[in-house]
Amino acid sequence: MPQHHHQPSAELQRCIDACLACYQSCRQTSMNHCLESGGRHVEPDHFRLMSACAEICRTSADFMLSSSTLHGVVCGACADVCEACAASCDEIGDMAECADACRRCAESCREMAASAPTGNRSRSTSASASRN
Amino acid sequence: MPQHHHQPSAELQRCIDACLACYQSCRQTSMNHCLESGGRHVEPDHFRLMSACAEICRTSADFMLSSSTLHGVVCGACADVCEACAASCDEIGDMAECADACRRCAESCREMAASAPTGNRSRSTSASASRN
Amino acid sequence: MPQHHHQPSAELQRCIDACLACYQSCRQTSMNHCLESGGRHVEPDHFRLMSACAEICRTSADFMLSSSTLHGVVCGACADVCEACAASCDEIGDMAECADACRRCAESCREMAASAPTGNRSRSTSASASRN
Amino acid sequence: MPQHHHQPSAELQRCIDACLACYQSCRQTSMNHCLESGGRHVEPDHFRLMSACAEICRTSADFMLSSSTLHGVVCGACADVCEACAASCDEIGDMAECADACRRCAESCREMAASAPTGNRSRSTSASASRN
Repeated sequence: MPQHHHQPSAELQRCIDACLACYQSCRQTSMNHCLESGGRHVEPDHFRLMSACAEICRTSADFMLSSSTLHGVVCGACADVCEACAASCDEIGDMAECADACRRCAESCREMAASAPTGNRSRSTSASASRN
Repeated sequence: MPQHHHQPSAELQRCIDACLACYQSCRQTSMNHCLESGGRHVEPDHFRLMSACAEICRTSADFMLSSSTLHGVVCGACADVCEACAASCDEIGDMAECADACRRCAESCREMAASAPTGNRSRSTSASASRN
Repeated sequence: MPQHHHQPSAELQRCIDACLACYQSCRQTSMNHCLESGGRHVEPDHFRLMSACAEICRTSADFMLSSSTLHGVVCGACADVCEACAASCDEIGDMAECADACRRCAESCREMAASAPTGNRSRSTSASASRN
Repeated sequence: MPQHHHQPSAELQRCIDACLACYQSCRQTSMNHCLESGGRHVEPDHFRLMSACAEICRTSADFMLSSSTLHGVVCGACADVCEACAASCDEIGDMAECADACRRCAESCREMAASAPTGNRSRSTSASASRN
């Protein structure tokens, strides 16, 4: 008898897919295209963003697969990193596929963060806002 | 000749250490103490928090080791998850060591997030604050 | 202009896909179906295998995405863990989808390990030489 | 009341420490020293080994923290990757600290793999049986 239960919602699965696609694109591109092209492609800030983006996308997917109630917090951080990585790819050039994967992931994670049940974050965010 | 350069600052290294200590405590405790104790120790929300906390701590350490300019964003998310995990450990009971590791990591990551150069985050945070 | 170069071979991409599918199945099933079902589903050895399988599948995919010359070594280890996890799922029961994902990944990784260029491994283990 | 149980054995903890030290050294060195030095330090095969070594060390530590019965399989793969990374560091030069961390981890993992209870691996590879 198959286990046919406990599938993530379609919306959650789309965001998981976007995160894992972005992870794959950032890792595959940095470790092949960037290292082999050299020059501006291995400029420290760009390469670090590619690696950081791969890392947080994988973690964001992991939170959603695990039904963590705090996935919104990590999706929000992931969206920030993906946006920065997309901008860096645009600036370096010849990175259109990776930049697109980053933007799709950023958009999906941003929506997920906005719709997630507010956890700890909402308390600390309003706190930090009131400090400004 | 040894490579004696590029060490993280003492402050950064302390936060990396706190993250890796919390990762180890959460993973080791959940996969041994919690699974072997059963009962409330494998209650889904508690166990998911232990796993999520291990995951984000590892990622937060990775951002700092990699000198990512966006480490503050991930440290902030990590502090949120660690605080929630410490609270869950307190509620379950018989988890004092793990709760302490979570609190030390949360405190260190919160300071790191506050002192980090503002990246993408500061723009989106002020945006979300103004929405409230 | 799109980056249209440096795609993994079709064979490599199939193995990456099998690894990431198995990672998702193991993580999603353990953190939802197993934790919510309880009983034998949270028996320590079974749950540890589910977690270990998720971890090594993710790492195996990462080696292949990164064009590591040592991916065969990690794919071999991954196949061992996936086979053990599939057997554990069969024994527990009500885990058919996850067991299938493990078996598909084990088979793909086993082939990859067999066809990978021999790296350090073949030199360091006289044992594997005797297989040839 | 503190949780004072379920600590890893001293031998296991030493190997976990060696893995996490090697992970930190590989990630920190590649993302700072190597990227900033450029030249041979970002040569694809060397940089990929640094990244792969960080990844498998983290996974090997995770298996041991989780008391996986298959940690010997992953420790064996980890030792192979660490040895290759140490050799690459020696060849590149100016990487002595990282090379030392890799060698310490390789040695510790090799011992762990040799002493681990034989799991799936011994059955699936007739080769390893012939070593005994």
